[in-house]
Amino acid sequence: MSQELQTAVVGATGYAGQELTRILFQHPRLKPPVLLAREGEETGEIASPVDGAPVPVHPFSWSTMHKKGVDLLFLATPHEVSRAWVPVAMRHGLRVVDLSGAWRLHAPENAAVYGFDDVGSAESDRLMSKAVYGLPELWGKHLPDAQLVANPGCYATSVILALAPLLKAGVVDRNRGIVSDSKSGVSGAGKEPTAKTHFVSVADNLSAYSIFNHRHVGEIVEQLELGAAELIFTPHLLPIPRGILSTIYLHLNREMTPFEVESLFQTFYSGKRWVRVFQTPKLPQVQFSLQTNYCDLGFCLAEDGRRLVLISCIDNLLKGAAGHAVQNMNLMYGWDEAEGLQ
Amino acid sequence: MSQELQTAVVGATGYAGQELTRILFQHPRLKPPVLLAREGEETGEIASPVDGAPVPVHPFSWSTMHKKGVDLLFLATPHEVSRAWVPVAMRHGLRVVDLSGAWRLHAPENAAVYGFDDVGSAESDRLMSKAVYGLPELWGKHLPDAQLVANPGCYATSVILALAPLLKAGVVDRNRGIVSDSKSGVSGAGKEPTAKTHFVSVADNLSAYSIFNHRHVGEIVEQLELGAAELIFTPHLLPIPRGILSTIYLHLNREMTPFEVESLFQTFYSGKRWVRVFQTPKLPQVQFSLQTNYCDLGFCLAEDGRRLVLISCIDNLLKGAAGHAVQNMNLMYGWDEAEGLQ
Amino acid sequence: MSQELQTAVVGATGYAGQELTRILFQHPRLKPPVLLAREGEETGEIASPVDGAPVPVHPFSWSTMHKKGVDLLFLATPHEVSRAWVPVAMRHGLRVVDLSGAWRLHAPENAAVYGFDDVGSAESDRLMSKAVYGLPELWGKHLPDAQLVANPGCYATSVILALAPLLKAGVVDRNRGIVSDSKSGVSGAGKEPTAKTHFVSVADNLSAYSIFNHRHVGEIVEQLELGAAELIFTPHLLPIPRGILSTIYLHLNREMTPFEVESLFQTFYSGKRWVRVFQTPKLPQVQFSLQTNYCDLGFCLAEDGRRLVLISCIDNLLKGAAGHAVQNMNLMYGWDEAEGLQ
Amino acid sequence: MSQELQTAVVGATGYAGQELTRILFQHPRLKPPVLLAREGEETGEIASPVDGAPVPVHPFSWSTMHKKGVDLLFLATPHEVSRAWVPVAMRHGLRVVDLSGAWRLHAPENAAVYGFDDVGSAESDRLMSKAVYGLPELWGKHLPDAQLVANPGCYATSVILALAPLLKAGVVDRNRGIVSDSKSGVSGAGKEPTAKTHFVSVADNLSAYSIFNHRHVGEIVEQLELGAAELIFTPHLLPIPRGILSTIYLHLNREMTPFEVESLFQTFYSGKRWVRVFQTPKLPQVQFSLQTNYCDLGFCLAEDGRRLVLISCIDNLLKGAAGHAVQNMNLMYGWDEAEGLQ
Repeated sequence: MSQELQTAVVGATGYAGQELTRILFQHPRLKPPVLLAREGEETGEIASPVDGAPVPVHPFSWSTMHKKGVDLLFLATPHEVSRAWVPVAMRHGLRVVDLSGAWRLHAPENAAVYGFDDVGSAESDRLMSKAVYGLPELWGKHLPDAQLVANPGCYATSVILALAPLLKAGVVDRNRGIVSDSKSGVSGAGKEPTAKTHFVSVADNLSAYSIFNHRHVGEIVEQLELGAAELIFTPHLLPIPRGILSTIYLHLNREMTPFEVESLFQTFYSGKRWVRVFQTPKLPQVQFSLQTNYCDLGFCLAEDGRRLVLISCIDNLLKGAAGHAVQNMNLMYGWDEAEGLQ
Repeated sequence: MSQELQTAVVGATGYAGQELTRILFQHPRLKPPVLLAREGEETGEIASPVDGAPVPVHPFSWSTMHKKGVDLLFLATPHEVSRAWVPVAMRHGLRVVDLSGAWRLHAPENAAVYGFDDVGSAESDRLMSKAVYGLPELWGKHLPDAQLVANPGCYATSVILALAPLLKAGVVDRNRGIVSDSKSGVSGAGKEPTAKTHFVSVADNLSAYSIFNHRHVGEIVEQLELGAAELIFTPHLLPIPRGILSTIYLHLNREMTPFEVESLFQTFYSGKRWVRVFQTPKLPQVQFSLQTNYCDLGFCLAEDGRRLVLISCIDNLLKGAAGHAVQNMNLMYGWDEAEGLQ
Repeated sequence: MSQELQTAVVGATGYAGQELTRILFQHPRLKPPVLLAREGEETGEIASPVDGAPVPVHPFSWSTMHKKGVDLLFLATPHEVSRAWVPVAMRHGLRVVDLSGAWRLHAPENAAVYGFDDVGSAESDRLMSKAVYGLPELWGKHLPDAQLVANPGCYATSVILALAPLLKAGVVDRNRGIVSDSKSGVSGAGKEPTAKTHFVSVADNLSAYSIFNHRHVGEIVEQLELGAAELIFTPHLLPIPRGILSTIYLHLNREMTPFEVESLFQTFYSGKRWVRVFQTPKLPQVQFSLQTNYCDLGFCLAEDGRRLVLISCIDNLLKGAAGHAVQNMNLMYGWDEAEGLQ
Repeated sequence: MSQELQTAVVGATGYAGQELTRILFQHPRLKPPVLLAREGEETGEIASPVDGAPVPVHPFSWSTMHKKGVDLLFLATPHEVSRAWVPVAMRHGLRVVDLSGAWRLHAPENAAVYGFDDVGSAESDRLMSKAVYGLPELWGKHLPDAQLVANPGCYATSVILALAPLLKAGVVDRNRGIVSDSKSGVSGAGKEPTAKTHFVSVADNLSAYSIFNHRHVGEIVEQLELGAAELIFTPHLLPIPRGILSTIYLHLNREMTPFEVESLFQTFYSGKRWVRVFQTPKLPQVQFSLQTNYCDLGFCLAEDGRRLVLISCIDNLLKGAAGHAVQNMNLMYGWDEAEGLQ
């Protein structure tokens, strides 16, 4: 197989960036990725995740990218950095997969939650409307032509993939509200050491945080076309390194059988390589999808045929970040969506 | 202080039994407890939790209890054992605190979930109606006269204490349903080694189980006078040894302020030694109540003043089992409810 | 690449067996392996680790193996089972990689520790002397002709690979004794639920066990040609699912520099694909070799140039079991030793 | 019991400081401790560990201490702070228990490892020689007159208590060297968030560090009167919040029986409240001493009666820090050494 594409990664040393770099180095379609460090980050060399040989990390510059012939740029950067750099990258003619939250929201009023001061400018608004939300199971057909792909948030991935089949089928009683009680491993909080990520704070513990005001709510309600009051999303910090489990509660607007619910999911995700629908009564667990790019979905329906509990699991660094980014790349270039991810 | 009471414990080697025994040995009002082993369990000696000196474990017999002058019997036994033994203990004139689920439910149709074949018999029905549900914050005034106290389930304790103030105040929109997404450490699953409690199955994992059919649902809905369809309760197994966190979702039937909600809780639990109401926006975490007999309660109210998320934390072996049992004993004998628990 | 070889696995549901099966299904040289269950184990179907499709598990029988054209049999079975079956497999003309301890020891007096009653029989003694100890870094050149490969123990792998270069170079002061303080994750204790592997027993804990009498001592001293009194080996149970770290202490019989020590290791393992020698002062950690087939080796030499501390890390299920078994197979058939393991 | 003594604590918010403060507030002989914050630390109020009521934290000043009538000052401060403040405290006539490493070493050449620039000054040298090393099992009779008590390091406590009985009995073959392979929970690394204490770095991992150059080596060899080359001490970071287990290897200089070894320990620690000698073959585990002030000691002797493995466990925040400090205080004032620690 010819190695046809030159990628670059900014942010290769964060948790998602490390996973991404590892996958890109082993991807059969790619030349070795160019690694770039932002100001203040270490340049020099890191060990190749394939064979341990030294791999250079260049100081970030657009001219380096030109010289290296970069086609596709992955940004594993804070959202304010992505917000500033993506317009420049577009002007340089690069395609971009951005792993931050900078370009996920289309409605300016939603994007305001990030505090970007460019909201309302013509260029930003054009980019926001043109960015493809990188959830291939929903937007896959837009990826081949996408210039800018906004890779989804980890929590958002687990929630949207669980709810989309039911909401699009119109079987959810939205008036009664949807609850997503989500739990994430600590790598989701990033690599920076904080009081919150100290081992002693996390071990033997569980805590809820950002109730009613987590940033991922914006992309979830936008993607699912929900009213803000129709969803309660509560994230929790689990004493595990990685993995997300979302337990989602909703009422159906008509009585259904478990068979109907399962069929609805099976049909919706038919042909989708990276979603596994579990046969009831088997339920996903965090361990099952760890170290894979799968989103695992299962459910339990009450005897009344109305009250439904969904379980959705992903590895937050793969299907929730780096794996998802590679899946997006595969579809942007017309390759099998599993390439490099097995 | 005179050591006035002779207690006995059956089941001193299980997780709850160990905690209970440790507390009883250090309780200033008690003679050293008599330890009894059921058929098939080891007798002989265990190390005293106070000073390590050997303490005898007697084979279970009613005559041993008579000889030792036992006043109060703690049963940390499987529910079918408690179901069989409590009537006999009553006939022997003992007072009993039963830590199992055998006598928690008053409605025979609810108790049927345990598969007891004595449901409907005169003696059982009389005992079921006469047993005091050992949640002192709700039923404390019945404890001084109680002959049989049914110590609450661990999950049930965390859920009932969080919901009772709101339901009794009539501010919950019960039609929209209540969700309790509860998470427990592994000691809640008992000491018997199983595939489910193997370290490798639990570590780096999270899983939901018994959705819509956990046995604690019965006592929760009975205590809170809820219809079965008004509550969804989902337990999860956390990779920690002990502790429970319940995240509870509900709608208020009128707009409230955070101050009103907090006041309602503060008033309800005024003078209750073992419930701590957190000042918003501070929320309980599992670590805060570990190794204590506290139930910690906190909440987050949406801006609409209607959607409410409650956080309730306990140590499942203390406020969820052994600590609760001692608190019940304290009130049965007219002592301070904190005696031996500080 | 043609898929030329038919393998079979007995014990595919244990921890090592699961890893082995996953690797074999993805190995480019192999037909899908035949899975066999011993009496008392479940037959039927398991999910393929590649694509989740159902894979049959046959009841164990030699005729099934003949019908399926099995060339190479992997036994992930208890040592007494392997001890009984290997002679039969030999008579059926199969090649065998045995993951148990049944055939690792060549000296009958050492093998006696397992309590085999066939020690001293002509057939057993012949097999014991003929079995190749499957540590490819030491015995690789014997693998192409091996009929029976005794896959090393997990602890033994970590200790032997760390000590072999120094002992073979004759630089160890054996009179002063060697200490290996080894720590293993819980999967090393096997999948059967026991009081010892219960989550609550392991979490927040560390314990030593089998001091002076662990079975792996026999293979370590035999392979390294040490006197039994020259090595103290102490295993510990770590609160992690997988991974081994051995900290090894010895005195050199002459003063050396760190450069000399590092060179000695580099030379010994030159061209060995699955051993990584760390440049001092960097030291291996358990995380570095997890999910890989590497044995990571590092060291720290005292300023006196005499006292040496070695750190050796492996993933006990890969380089300590299944990965090692596949590496052995690769060399038995003349393939690249990394095939299927990257 | 009259509450006779006024204590003060600097550093009440670190891990050891929190434990210390909790114990002091519940100690029957003490007035509530005065809490003081160093420059840069938060003042204001913290919740009382007894009843949650607000407790003031004062800005540090000597005049505050005078006004509050402080008798005894606990310093849970970095060693450079303790080094600077202790001479001042002495001049103010305070007694001091210092939890840092500032005053543990008596030999100036050993103290140099901390980089103190006052080594060699008359006042420092006098204080260094006059400070009592606060290991009550060894130096208890000096505590009643001590003005300055240097509370031992956590690792050092576990190692010294295990080795002292054997070394003082003269039964160790010191020429062959002693190895202490020690493992500690993460609270031992302090509360400051670092890359090393991030949950993701620690979980599912084990790592060795500071081989041949950990600061506690100085106090161990000084207390045990060992030559520096006679001990190798290797600390490891365990994925648990608290607890230390040291596995110690040595050769006896004459053949002994397990009974002799056990007797030697029992005799040495006879009447010592906070050391538990385990009867062989039972061995200490980290869990056994957690949340207690015990040092648990056990051993395993090889069949040759010469090679001995010791296991020593403590809770690093109690017997390794705060509990030890309170035990020292108890003896400084002539109280029962268990006061406030049960």
